[in-house]
Amino acid sequence: MKKVITLGEVMLRLSPPAHQRFLQAQSFEIEFGGSEANVGANLAAWGISVQHLSAFPPHELGQAAIAKLRQLGIDTRFCYLRDGRLGTYFLEKGALDRGSKIIYDREHSSFSKLDPDIVDWEELFENADWLHWSGISPAISESTARLTLRAVTEAQKKGVKVSGDLNYRSNLWSYGKAAHEIMPELLKATQVMIAGKRDFEQCLNLGFKDFEDAASYAFEKFDQLEWISQTHRVTHSASHNTISAELHSRDNSFQSKSYDLTPIVDRVGTGDAFAAGLIYGLLHTTPQESIEMAMAAGALKHSVPGDQLHASLEEIREVMAGVSGRIKR
Amino acid sequence: MKKVITLGEVMLRLSPPAHQRFLQAQSFEIEFGGSEANVGANLAAWGISVQHLSAFPPHELGQAAIAKLRQLGIDTRFCYLRDGRLGTYFLEKGALDRGSKIIYDREHSSFSKLDPDIVDWEELFENADWLHWSGISPAISESTARLTLRAVTEAQKKGVKVSGDLNYRSNLWSYGKAAHEIMPELLKATQVMIAGKRDFEQCLNLGFKDFEDAASYAFEKFDQLEWISQTHRVTHSASHNTISAELHSRDNSFQSKSYDLTPIVDRVGTGDAFAAGLIYGLLHTTPQESIEMAMAAGALKHSVPGDQLHASLEEIREVMAGVSGRIKR
Amino acid sequence: MKKVITLGEVMLRLSPPAHQRFLQAQSFEIEFGGSEANVGANLAAWGISVQHLSAFPPHELGQAAIAKLRQLGIDTRFCYLRDGRLGTYFLEKGALDRGSKIIYDREHSSFSKLDPDIVDWEELFENADWLHWSGISPAISESTARLTLRAVTEAQKKGVKVSGDLNYRSNLWSYGKAAHEIMPELLKATQVMIAGKRDFEQCLNLGFKDFEDAASYAFEKFDQLEWISQTHRVTHSASHNTISAELHSRDNSFQSKSYDLTPIVDRVGTGDAFAAGLIYGLLHTTPQESIEMAMAAGALKHSVPGDQLHASLEEIREVMAGVSGRIKR
Amino acid sequence: MKKVITLGEVMLRLSPPAHQRFLQAQSFEIEFGGSEANVGANLAAWGISVQHLSAFPPHELGQAAIAKLRQLGIDTRFCYLRDGRLGTYFLEKGALDRGSKIIYDREHSSFSKLDPDIVDWEELFENADWLHWSGISPAISESTARLTLRAVTEAQKKGVKVSGDLNYRSNLWSYGKAAHEIMPELLKATQVMIAGKRDFEQCLNLGFKDFEDAASYAFEKFDQLEWISQTHRVTHSASHNTISAELHSRDNSFQSKSYDLTPIVDRVGTGDAFAAGLIYGLLHTTPQESIEMAMAAGALKHSVPGDQLHASLEEIREVMAGVSGRIKR
Amino acid sequence: MKKVITLGEVMLRLSPPAHQRFLQAQSFEIEFGGSEANVGANLAAWGISVQHLSAFPPHELGQAAIAKLRQLGIDTRFCYLRDGRLGTYFLEKGALDRGSKIIYDREHSSFSKLDPDIVDWEELFENADWLHWSGISPAISESTARLTLRAVTEAQKKGVKVSGDLNYRSNLWSYGKAAHEIMPELLKATQVMIAGKRDFEQCLNLGFKDFEDAASYAFEKFDQLEWISQTHRVTHSASHNTISAELHSRDNSFQSKSYDLTPIVDRVGTGDAFAAGLIYGLLHTTPQESIEMAMAAGALKHSVPGDQLHASLEEIREVMAGVSGRIKR
Amino acid sequence: MKKVITLGEVMLRLSPPAHQRFLQAQSFEIEFGGSEANVGANLAAWGISVQHLSAFPPHELGQAAIAKLRQLGIDTRFCYLRDGRLGTYFLEKGALDRGSKIIYDREHSSFSKLDPDIVDWEELFENADWLHWSGISPAISESTARLTLRAVTEAQKKGVKVSGDLNYRSNLWSYGKAAHEIMPELLKATQVMIAGKRDFEQCLNLGFKDFEDAASYAFEKFDQLEWISQTHRVTHSASHNTISAELHSRDNSFQSKSYDLTPIVDRVGTGDAFAAGLIYGLLHTTPQESIEMAMAAGALKHSVPGDQLHASLEEIREVMAGVSGRIKR
Repeated sequence: MKKVITLGEVMLRLSPPAHQRFLQAQSFEIEFGGSEANVGANLAAWGISVQHLSAFPPHELGQAAIAKLRQLGIDTRFCYLRDGRLGTYFLEKGALDRGSKIIYDREHSSFSKLDPDIVDWEELFENADWLHWSGISPAISESTARLTLRAVTEAQKKGVKVSGDLNYRSNLWSYGKAAHEIMPELLKATQVMIAGKRDFEQCLNLGFKDFEDAASYAFEKFDQLEWISQTHRVTHSASHNTISAELHSRDNSFQSKSYDLTPIVDRVGTGDAFAAGLIYGLLHTTPQESIEMAMAAGALKHSVPGDQLHASLEEIREVMAGVSGRIKR
Repeated sequence: MKKVITLGEVMLRLSPPAHQRFLQAQSFEIEFGGSEANVGANLAAWGISVQHLSAFPPHELGQAAIAKLRQLGIDTRFCYLRDGRLGTYFLEKGALDRGSKIIYDREHSSFSKLDPDIVDWEELFENADWLHWSGISPAISESTARLTLRAVTEAQKKGVKVSGDLNYRSNLWSYGKAAHEIMPELLKATQVMIAGKRDFEQCLNLGFKDFEDAASYAFEKFDQLEWISQTHRVTHSASHNTISAELHSRDNSFQSKSYDLTPIVDRVGTGDAFAAGLIYGLLHTTPQESIEMAMAAGALKHSVPGDQLHASLEEIREVMAGVSGRIKR
Repeated sequence: MKKVITLGEVMLRLSPPAHQRFLQAQSFEIEFGGSEANVGANLAAWGISVQHLSAFPPHELGQAAIAKLRQLGIDTRFCYLRDGRLGTYFLEKGALDRGSKIIYDREHSSFSKLDPDIVDWEELFENADWLHWSGISPAISESTARLTLRAVTEAQKKGVKVSGDLNYRSNLWSYGKAAHEIMPELLKATQVMIAGKRDFEQCLNLGFKDFEDAASYAFEKFDQLEWISQTHRVTHSASHNTISAELHSRDNSFQSKSYDLTPIVDRVGTGDAFAAGLIYGLLHTTPQESIEMAMAAGALKHSVPGDQLHASLEEIREVMAGVSGRIKR
Repeated sequence: MKKVITLGEVMLRLSPPAHQRFLQAQSFEIEFGGSEANVGANLAAWGISVQHLSAFPPHELGQAAIAKLRQLGIDTRFCYLRDGRLGTYFLEKGALDRGSKIIYDREHSSFSKLDPDIVDWEELFENADWLHWSGISPAISESTARLTLRAVTEAQKKGVKVSGDLNYRSNLWSYGKAAHEIMPELLKATQVMIAGKRDFEQCLNLGFKDFEDAASYAFEKFDQLEWISQTHRVTHSASHNTISAELHSRDNSFQSKSYDLTPIVDRVGTGDAFAAGLIYGLLHTTPQESIEMAMAAGALKHSVPGDQLHASLEEIREVMAGVSGRIKR
Repeated sequence: MKKVITLGEVMLRLSPPAHQRFLQAQSFEIEFGGSEANVGANLAAWGISVQHLSAFPPHELGQAAIAKLRQLGIDTRFCYLRDGRLGTYFLEKGALDRGSKIIYDREHSSFSKLDPDIVDWEELFENADWLHWSGISPAISESTARLTLRAVTEAQKKGVKVSGDLNYRSNLWSYGKAAHEIMPELLKATQVMIAGKRDFEQCLNLGFKDFEDAASYAFEKFDQLEWISQTHRVTHSASHNTISAELHSRDNSFQSKSYDLTPIVDRVGTGDAFAAGLIYGLLHTTPQESIEMAMAAGALKHSVPGDQLHASLEEIREVMAGVSGRIKR
Repeated sequence: MKKVITLGEVMLRLSPPAHQRFLQAQSFEIEFGGSEANVGANLAAWGISVQHLSAFPPHELGQAAIAKLRQLGIDTRFCYLRDGRLGTYFLEKGALDRGSKIIYDREHSSFSKLDPDIVDWEELFENADWLHWSGISPAISESTARLTLRAVTEAQKKGVKVSGDLNYRSNLWSYGKAAHEIMPELLKATQVMIAGKRDFEQCLNLGFKDFEDAASYAFEKFDQLEWISQTHRVTHSASHNTISAELHSRDNSFQSKSYDLTPIVDRVGTGDAFAAGLIYGLLHTTPQESIEMAMAAGALKHSVPGDQLHASLEEIREVMAGVSGRIKR
C-alpha cells in the first residue's frame, strides 16, 4: 500500500441548495473541503494510505472537519488544533449563463497560523511515497509558505516524490509576498507539476508564448522535474463544459480523451480529482493510462455534488473504457 | 436615480420541489410574484427606485407578500390592505417533453377589488419617470381595468413614459369584458409595447398577416407609440429553449443575440426579466444595447429559481459580453 | 371500463436526494414500486380498473406500501399480508458518465413466499380483460414462479389476454432454477411479449443472430403469440439517452418515433410506462398508435421522479403529437 | 364489517414546518383534511368500510386530494369532480403562549357548490350502518346545507344511525342563514350529538345555564336523540392541554379518564379522532368503553402531525390501558 | 408614528436543524440577527419607524443581510457597505440538560470597522424619538466604541431618549479596553438601562451587594437615569425556564407576571424582544403596562424560531391578558 | 490512552423526520448504530482508543457504515467485508402516549455470518484494557454467539477486563438456542454486568424475587464478577421519563442522581451512553463518580438525535455538576 502525504487548508463549504442564488438562500448545505485534502480523500478511496497535514480551531466545527476527513479515510494524526477561525467558503452553484460564484471568508484561519516547527517531520514522512502540495498553501500566509517549503524540502531529503498543483489564485498572496518570490523554491523540489501557461507566468514572473514554451522553460530550469500536466476546459456555459488533458515528460507527450459534460452537477473539486488520478496513475501504471485515469476522474467529478469524488477505481476504469452511463443493478 | 411605478397583482406561488408532479408533492416551495412586481424587483436590484401599486389581504400571508416586496427593494407604501383572498398559483416545473403546468387560483383576490379612487395618484407619481403595466391587470376585474386605465391616464397627464406588456391570457377576461373593449384605450397612452402578433390580434380584435403587419398597424393607429418589442422562443422541450428578441421603432429595427438554453432551471418570470432589461435600457442607453440587455436579462432568468432575477447589472453585462459561465472566485 | 390484472413484488425504494452518492446520503427519499405494479398504476391513471396481486409484511411499512397502491388507484383486495421482509432497493441516481446504481435487498420478502393456493383465482379473474406479468416474478423464488405460472394458466383458461415483459435479470434466478427451465411455459400462454434479443436468448437458452431471428423463432414456436415489442436505447450518458421502439405481429412491423432525452430526471420505471402504454393501446386502438403511445409514455417517464408516470392520457397524446414542452396555464 | 358514510369538505392544508410563523415560512408542508373525512379516515384504519361524499375541482390538486382519501382507505366513489376551488387552510402551529393559527381560504370551493340532486342516494346508503355529519357543512353554503339535510333525511328513512358534531364556527354561516335556522332540522334526525353548551346555544338560538341544562333541553326536544357527548379541554398553553370527556344518555352518564398532554405535536383533528373513537365504540362495545375509546383516540392524536390519527385499534387499546409511552421493538 | 434608532452588528446565524449537534449537522438554517437590530425589527412590526445604523460587506451575503432587515420593516438607509467580513455565529439549539451553544466568528467584520465620521448624524436623528444601543457594540472594537459614544452624545444633544442594554459579554472586549473604561461614558447619557447586578459590576468595575445596591448606585451616579429594568431567569433545563422582570424608577418598582416556559423553541433573542416591549411601553403607556408588555414579548419569543419575534401588538396583548394558547381560526 | 474493544452489529437506522408516523413518511433520516458500536463511539469521543469488531456487506452502504464509524473516531481495521445484508432498523419516534416503535429488518446480515476463525485475535487484543459485549450479539446467530464467546475467552486469557450489557431481547434468539444455553458461559468471564432482574432471569432461566436477589445470586455464582449496575426508568409518557441508576460491588452500593427528562428528543442509545460512562468511570475514577458519570451520559443522550451521544467529557461533567441547560457563548 502506497502512502501519500497531502498538506493544505480544509474549509467549511456552505452552499444554497439546488440552483438558488445567495440572495434566496434559507439554508446552506455543509461540506468540508480543500484542494489538497480533496486529492487525499480521492486517493484514500482507492486504497492509498493518506496522511493530511493541517490545522483547525479546537471548537466543534473544527472537530467536525477533522471527523469528516476521517470519514473520507484520511489519517488525521497531523491535523492540529490551533487558535484561529475555520476557513469558510460560500458557493453559489451556477447554471446556463450564470457562472458559479465563490465568496471566500478564509482569512485568520487556524491553518494560516500553522507553525512548521511544531510538526514531527520524521514521523510524518515515515514510509511515505509521495507528497502533494498546491499553490494555495504558500499564498495564504508567511507561515504556511514556510510550512510548504519545509515539507517539500523534507521530501527531497528523503527521496519522496513531490507533485504540485500550481493553481495560481490572484485573490490570495495578500500577506506581502508575490508568488514569484516563493514558488520557484517550491518548484525546484517538485517532480510533477500541474499547471497551465498562466500559472507558470505568475509563479515565475515571466511571459511565455504558449504552454509549450512555458513547459520547455520549466524542464530546462528545474532539473528534477519529470512531468508537467495541463487540462483544457472549454466553458460553453456553466452547465456545459468540454475537457481534456495532456501529460508531458522531457521526451514525450500523452493526450487524454475529451469529455463533453452536460449538465454539470458540481464543478468544484474537478481539478483535485484530476490530480488524484494522475498521482495514482504515476504510482501504479503507464503515462498514457495515468493521464486517461486523471481525466476520467476529473470528468466523473462533474457528476458528484461536494468537493470529493467518492468513486471507486472500478468506476474510474469504466469511464476510461467508455462503458459508463448505464444503470447498474 | 430613476423612479419607476409598477402596478399589478402579487400572488403566492406554490410549487413542488425539484421535478415532482402535483400528484407527488408533499410540500410546496413558497415564492411571491406577479408579472409587474417582478419587473419592479428586477429594476430595484439595479438601483432604480420602484413603487408598486397593489392590494393584499390584511392577514399574515398578505403581510408576508408585502414584506417580500420590501426585501426585493420595492417601496410598498402603495400596497394596500384590503379584504379578499391572496391570489395563488400552483406551479409544476416541467422537464423534457413535460411542459410546466400552472393552476391559477386567483379569483376574488384583494387586488381584484382594488378601487382606483382610494389611491393618492399625485403622491404616487411624484418624480416618476416611468409606469409599467401588463395586460393581466385589466383582464382580472372591472375594478382593476379601471385602475390600470386611471394609472395610464395619470402618466399621460404628467408626461411619464408608459410601457405595457400586452400579455394576452385567454383564461382571464372572465368578468364580462373582452380584451378589445379595454386594451385600445390603454395602448393609446403607451410608448413601449411588448407584444407578439397574437397579443395584438386579441387586444385589437383584428387579424394580422404577421408581426410586421401588426406592428405597422400599431404604429399607424397609436400616435404616441415609440417602441414595439417582441421575443422569439423555440421550445425544443421544457428543458431546452432557444430565445431571441427584436425592438422596433417607427424607422428602425434592432435584433438581439440568440441564446440557446439547456437545461432550464425556471421558465417563469423570464418575460418579466426581459421587460425590466428593456425599461432599464431605454432609460439609460441606446436601443441596440437596450434589446441586448433585455434579452440577456431574460436569458439569465432561465437559470434562477423563483419569479425574480436576483442579478446585478454587472452580471447582465457579462452575459451580454458572452463571458459568462465560468466560476467566479 | 377495461380490467387489467398485474402481479409482482412491490418494493420500498430508498434513494439519496438529488445527485448524491450513497456515501454522501444523510436521508433517503421514499417511493414504493415494482415493475408490474408500476404498469398497473399507470393504467389506473388512465381509467383502467387494475387489480394487483402481491404480498406484504403485516407491519406498518407493508401497510404503507399497500396504501400507496390504493393512492395510485389500484385495487388492493389481492394484496395479502404475509410473514417476511418488505423487499427493498436502494437507488443512486446517476448523471453524466456516472450510471445510476441499484443495490437490491429483496431476498426473503413476503412476496417471495406467496403461495398460489391461497389466491381466489375465480374472484381475481372476474371480468378481467388482461393479465400482465414480468420475468422478475418467476426469477424470485420457486413459489413466485408457481404463482406466475398459475396466473398465466388461469388467464389462458378464461380467454384473458396475457402480456409479459421478459426482463431477464441475471442477478436474480438464484433459487435453483434457470430462466429457461421456467420461462417457456409462461411464454406459451402469452399473447404480447416485450423482449429484446438477449431476453429471448436467456429465457430460451438459445443463441440468435439478431432480434429478428429471435422474433421469428418465437412466432414459430409459440402459437398463441400475437405481438412482440422491443425498445431501443442509446445511452450517450446517464443524463442523455435516445430511445425508440417497434412492434411486430406475424405479418407486420410498426415503428415508433424516436425521442432524444436530456437531461434525464429518473430512468427507473420507463420500461413499465412503455408497457402500460402498449397494453392500453392494444386494448383500445391500432397497432401503430399503440407503439407510439407506448413510446410516448416511456419517454415522458424520464421526466418524472419515482417509479410511476403520474400522467394523464391527454398528456400522453400531447407528447405523441409533439406539442409538448410549453408552459400550460 | 360495518359501513359508515361521512360527508364534508376536504381541504388542502398548508403549514410552515416545525414552529415557524407564517411570516418566516419558505415552504409549506401539505396535508389534506376536513373534519368529517378525518373521522372517516380514522374509522377506515380500524377496518370500517367508509364512503365519503364530497366534491373536488377536476384539476391535479383535486385529484391529489381524492388520491389521499384512497390512501387513507376511504372509498371515493362519491367524491365528485365539480367546478370551483379546492378549499384551503393555512395552519401555523403554536407553542407555549402562542396559540396555533388558522387562515381559512375556503370560499367558492367545489364542495360549496355540490348539488344534492346529483347524488345517487340509494347506492350511497346501500348496507350503511351509520352517517356522520358536522356543523361545518351546513355553515358553508345553502347548497351544502341542503346536502346535509338530504343526507340526514335519507338516513332517517333507511333507519341508519346518525351522529353529528355540532362544531359551531362563527366565521362561517356567511351565506345568509343563521345556524339556528338550519341546525334544528338536522338535529331532529340525529341520534348522537357531540356538542358543548355554546354549540347548543348557537344552534338553537337559546341561552342555557350550563351543559347539563342544554343536554336536558336537547333530550326533551329531540325524541330520537340517544347520546350527547362533550369534551373538556384545559388549555394551559399551546403546548400543554388537559382533556377529558363525558357521554350522556337519557338515564346515564359515563366519564372518561383525563389526559395531561405535553408537549403537543398537532392539535388539529383531535376532535375528529374523538368522534371516530365514539362512533367505533357505539357500534361495537359498551358506553363506558366507547367514551374511553373516544378520549384515548383524541388524546393520541395530539402526538401525530397532520389531520388524521394513523393509529391501529391495538394502539388505542394500549392508551386506554395506560401502558403506552414505552419503546416497542 | 414614533421613530426609533438602533445601532449594532447584524450577523449571519447558522444553526443545525431541530436538535442536531454541530458534529451531526449536514446543513445550516440561515437567519440574520443581532441584538439591537432584533429590537428594531420587533418595534417595526408594531408600527414604529425604525432606522438601523450598521455596516456590511458589499458581497451578496452582506446584501442579503440588508434585504432581510428591509423585509423586517427596518429602514436600511444607514446600513453602509464596507470592507470586512460578515460577522457570523453558529448556534446549536440545546434541550434538556444540554444548553444551547454559540460559536462566534465575528472578528474583522465590516461593522467592527465602521467609522463614526462617515455617518450623517443630522439626517439619522431627524424626527427621532429614541435611540437604543447595547453593550455589545462598544465591546467589539475601538471604532464601534467611538460610534456608540457618538450616537449617544448626539441623542443627548438633540433631547432624544436613550435606552441601553448593558449586556456584558466577557468573550468580547478584546481590543485593548475594559468595559469600565468605556461604559460609564455611555451610561451618562442613557435614560433607560436594562441590566443585572453583574452587568453593573463589570461595566463600573465595582462590587455590589445585590441588584438593589447596584441600582441605587446607578440612580445616584447618573443624573439623567430614569428607569432600570432587570429580568429574572430560572433555568430548570435548556427546555424549561421560568422568567419574570421588574422595572425601577427612582421612586417606584413595577413587577411583571412570571412565565413558566416549556418546551422552549428558541432561547435566542428573548432579551431583545423584552427590550422592544419595554421601549414600546415607555413610549406609549404606563410603567406597569410597560414591564408587562416587555415580559410578554420576551416570553412569547421563546416560542418563535430565529432571532426576531414576528408578533403583532394584538398577540402581545393576548399574552398579557393570559388568554393565549388556544387555536385561533 | 486506554484501549477498549467493542464487538457487535452496526445497522442502518431509518426514521421518519420529526414525529411522523411510518404511514406518513416521505423520507427517512439515515443514521448508523448498534448498541456496542454506540458505546465505542461515545468512548472514542472521550479520548479512548476504540477498536470495533464487526462485519459489513461490501457494497456502498456497508462502506458508508464503516466510514461513519471512522468519523466517530473508531478504528475499523477489524470491520470485515462479508456477504450478506446490512442489518436495518426502522424507528418511528413517539411522543406523549405514543411510544417509539422499532421495526427490525436485521436477519441474514453480514454480521450474523461472521466467523470467529477469521479474526486475528492476537492483533485485536494488543494493548487492550477492556472488552465490551452485549446480549444482542449471542442472540443473533450461532456464528455470532461463538464470536462473542471467543472474544470473552480471549479477554480472560489476556487479563483484559470485560463488561457485558445483558440486554435480553425476546424477539431475537430465533436461531435455535435459548439465552440460558449461551449466556452463563459469557457471564463467567465478565467483570462488569449491566442488567436488571428480568435480564438475569432470562439469561439464567431462573426466577428471582427482585434485583437484589438476582444480584446476590450472580455475585455468588460468578467468581470473577466485580460490578453489577442497573438503571431505573419511569416512563410517564414517550416524552417524559425519570431515570436513575445504581452500581453494586460485593460490599457496596452506589446510587446516582435522578434525572427528570421532558421533552425527550431521542430515547435510542441512552443505555449505550450509560454503559460508556460506566466503562470510562471504572477505568479512570471512583465507583460513585462512575455511576454518576454513567447516568449523566445516559440522561444527556435523551437530548441528542441519533444513536450516539456526541458529547465531550467536559459536557458530561457539567451535567454531573448540575450546571447544565444555560446558553454557552
